[in-house]
Amino acid sequence: MNTLIEPKILKGFRDFLPPAEIARRNLIEKIEAFFRSYGFLPIDTPALEYAEILLGKGGGDTEKQIYRFKDHGDRDVALRFDLTVPLARFLAAHMHELTFPFKRYHIAKVWRGENTQRGRYREFTQCDFDTIGSDSAACDFEILHVMWNTLPAIAGGKIIIHLNHRGVFNSFLSRLGVLDKSVEILRTVDKLAKIGKDETLNLLAQAVGEKSGKEILDYIEISGSFEETLTAMTAAAGAGPETERLRQIYLSMVDAGITENVVLNPSITRGLDYYTGIVYESFLAELPDIGSICSGGRYDNLVGLYSRESLPGNGTSIGIDRLIAGMDALGRLDSAKSYAQIAIACVNEGSSGAYQALANKLRKSGIPCEVFLKEEKLTSQFQTAEKKGIQWLIIPDSEKPLGGQLTLRDLSKRENREGIKIEEIIAGFVK
Amino acid sequence: MNTLIEPKILKGFRDFLPPAEIARRNLIEKIEAFFRSYGFLPIDTPALEYAEILLGKGGGDTEKQIYRFKDHGDRDVALRFDLTVPLARFLAAHMHELTFPFKRYHIAKVWRGENTQRGRYREFTQCDFDTIGSDSAACDFEILHVMWNTLPAIAGGKIIIHLNHRGVFNSFLSRLGVLDKSVEILRTVDKLAKIGKDETLNLLAQAVGEKSGKEILDYIEISGSFEETLTAMTAAAGAGPETERLRQIYLSMVDAGITENVVLNPSITRGLDYYTGIVYESFLAELPDIGSICSGGRYDNLVGLYSRESLPGNGTSIGIDRLIAGMDALGRLDSAKSYAQIAIACVNEGSSGAYQALANKLRKSGIPCEVFLKEEKLTSQFQTAEKKGIQWLIIPDSEKPLGGQLTLRDLSKRENREGIKIEEIIAGFVK
Repeated sequence: MNTLIEPKILKGFRDFLPPAEIARRNLIEKIEAFFRSYGFLPIDTPALEYAEILLGKGGGDTEKQIYRFKDHGDRDVALRFDLTVPLARFLAAHMHELTFPFKRYHIAKVWRGENTQRGRYREFTQCDFDTIGSDSAACDFEILHVMWNTLPAIAGGKIIIHLNHRGVFNSFLSRLGVLDKSVEILRTVDKLAKIGKDETLNLLAQAVGEKSGKEILDYIEISGSFEETLTAMTAAAGAGPETERLRQIYLSMVDAGITENVVLNPSITRGLDYYTGIVYESFLAELPDIGSICSGGRYDNLVGLYSRESLPGNGTSIGIDRLIAGMDALGRLDSAKSYAQIAIACVNEGSSGAYQALANKLRKSGIPCEVFLKEEKLTSQFQTAEKKGIQWLIIPDSEKPLGGQLTLRDLSKRENREGIKIEEIIAGFVK
Repeated sequence: MNTLIEPKILKGFRDFLPPAEIARRNLIEKIEAFFRSYGFLPIDTPALEYAEILLGKGGGDTEKQIYRFKDHGDRDVALRFDLTVPLARFLAAHMHELTFPFKRYHIAKVWRGENTQRGRYREFTQCDFDTIGSDSAACDFEILHVMWNTLPAIAGGKIIIHLNHRGVFNSFLSRLGVLDKSVEILRTVDKLAKIGKDETLNLLAQAVGEKSGKEILDYIEISGSFEETLTAMTAAAGAGPETERLRQIYLSMVDAGITENVVLNPSITRGLDYYTGIVYESFLAELPDIGSICSGGRYDNLVGLYSRESLPGNGTSIGIDRLIAGMDALGRLDSAKSYAQIAIACVNEGSSGAYQALANKLRKSGIPCEVFLKEEKLTSQFQTAEKKGIQWLIIPDSEKPLGGQLTLRDLSKRENREGIKIEEIIAGFVK
């Protein structure tokens, strides 16, 4: 007897069985419909690239996490670890084939060999949308508008979007005379929600002294309406193009009627990321603790490593896995087990041609219909339909499967309706 | 000045710019809608697996082509080179969570480090659908029915499907007393279309002698209607469960009304693949030379390497890249450059909130609408819309962007319609 190979998968990787994959696809399809409705265009790039391209000037965490190896031609290659670096390479390579501002979305798998604790995966889906080649407030506002429209619709509940401007925070640090400590300050401020106020103040005091530390804490704790917060931030950091940008965005929010659930929050900095202007985070109102489900912001020059041309942009990324986990916890995840709404029972295996013809009448009317392949007791077929999450079962006439009278069973009510025609069934579904 | 990194990609890999990616997605979305309408369910599996799993007992070409390396934990891992081996591993791992017959589809990227000549890529999309856990004629017929319905609809033209049964060919070889040479014979027969009749006969004669070679050639050249061909095949190979299976499938074809464009072709063998029963190939009627665009068949036991349970199945794979190349050659490829049907010109950048509100009225009516972000001359904005393949442009009122009178420009006719309301524009599109 042959030795079997154990059918195991790598740690941090996942199989998606149909119910999970259907939920994921339904979510992604809704997201795509929103992106497309704004004119964002899909692109795709290779999963495998030259390591030099992906690592850039990089190093640090990326270098440790990236799946990197020598291919058959002894080329130093690696699996992409995000969709932003491939976008930069793509833009540099195709700059003269694209129309700017270029609005693209990209939903694809990425790989990071990181620690798999706390629900982190080594293979996961990224879902990015970016506008490249525009540094206008109209562009910053559009990204916010996409988030405001899309996130509550896909999450099925209230979403709070937090906005800030990196430049205003830098102006404030500059006024305090501690801009040279900004890396350390950003790292600390980013942890506020996690470590609490006292510990934040403690760390800030160590970095810039107690007085400045207290002033920074006061600044990031500014709150109130958007207008009140902006006024207080402007008083602390001084007026300039950055506060003016926030004002323009606010006026657009008013014009578009999307002020509700948008918060100006001076403590949002996106840590040490490459953002230079507006930054965004967003939270499920009922489950803020799982963290931001869509984050991003404005960056100065994405393609600097690969091209002398300068391309500013703005984009955010929806955390599909985190969003799904949150929706699941809130009982809002689509739990469909099948796309088929109706099935045709197998009364006689030899009639399978007639069953497919019957099913095709439903399919052509836009009603997905499965044909059961195995001739077995009807009670077993009822169970199969229930296991597959299909509510309706057609039981064809054994003598005259096509054109004859049918029985329609509602498995949720365990009721049969007899002597019904296929056209009546279709009419019932289409209605 | 920094040294730039050349933004190159690996040989055999591709970037998909929006027009190519839109065409690919439109095609895949149509295919998925067909699969779903039959009750096929989506699954997903990791791109990276243990090399032992992917290679199985393998070796040969697979071993040479597979992207294999050691990961951070010194595990021997590899990128999947098809979707069939991962399916087998998936089935063995989740056998008790699935309902059989299990109908699944899987559309995903695979990687092979093969020679890149003749339009072969090292990264390409596979599109598989399989029914596992049924060895019935109803299952064989359903796969044919999916192909018959789906392929002409997605390719936009006539498709000829070729059917055969591996078992009938084996019975024939057994009768001739040359079954022990079947590997060599299959390899030769598979090349018939490429090397021609004379050379095929030549090679067959070398393998099994001139007389048997001639008889094999006569057998694989049997033609005529499905019924005529089946009668001649049965006469040559003897009646048995395999010819009976072909007869049952034919009866179902008649019942379902899908006899047209289906050919019983005894020369179709799918070479040395693992098929054991029915095999399928399919060709664009106007471009048969590019080869089969959807092929597959029945296999005995997919999960044998990983489980003692036996699971027969039947499935085929649509060659997306080849199909797209064929449709492109026939001028039938979707050439949309954008999903947006209409755009709103930017008359005043400060009105971007109002423009998004206007656009949202269209979006909510199911009309994708892009907002132009840059305030520039209208003639430039006309050009941008044309470059993006957007036919309609709304020029808002500069004083009263929302609620005021609009101008609607048809860029294909270069005509303006003035004094129109957003509701009228929506009504025109929805109609």
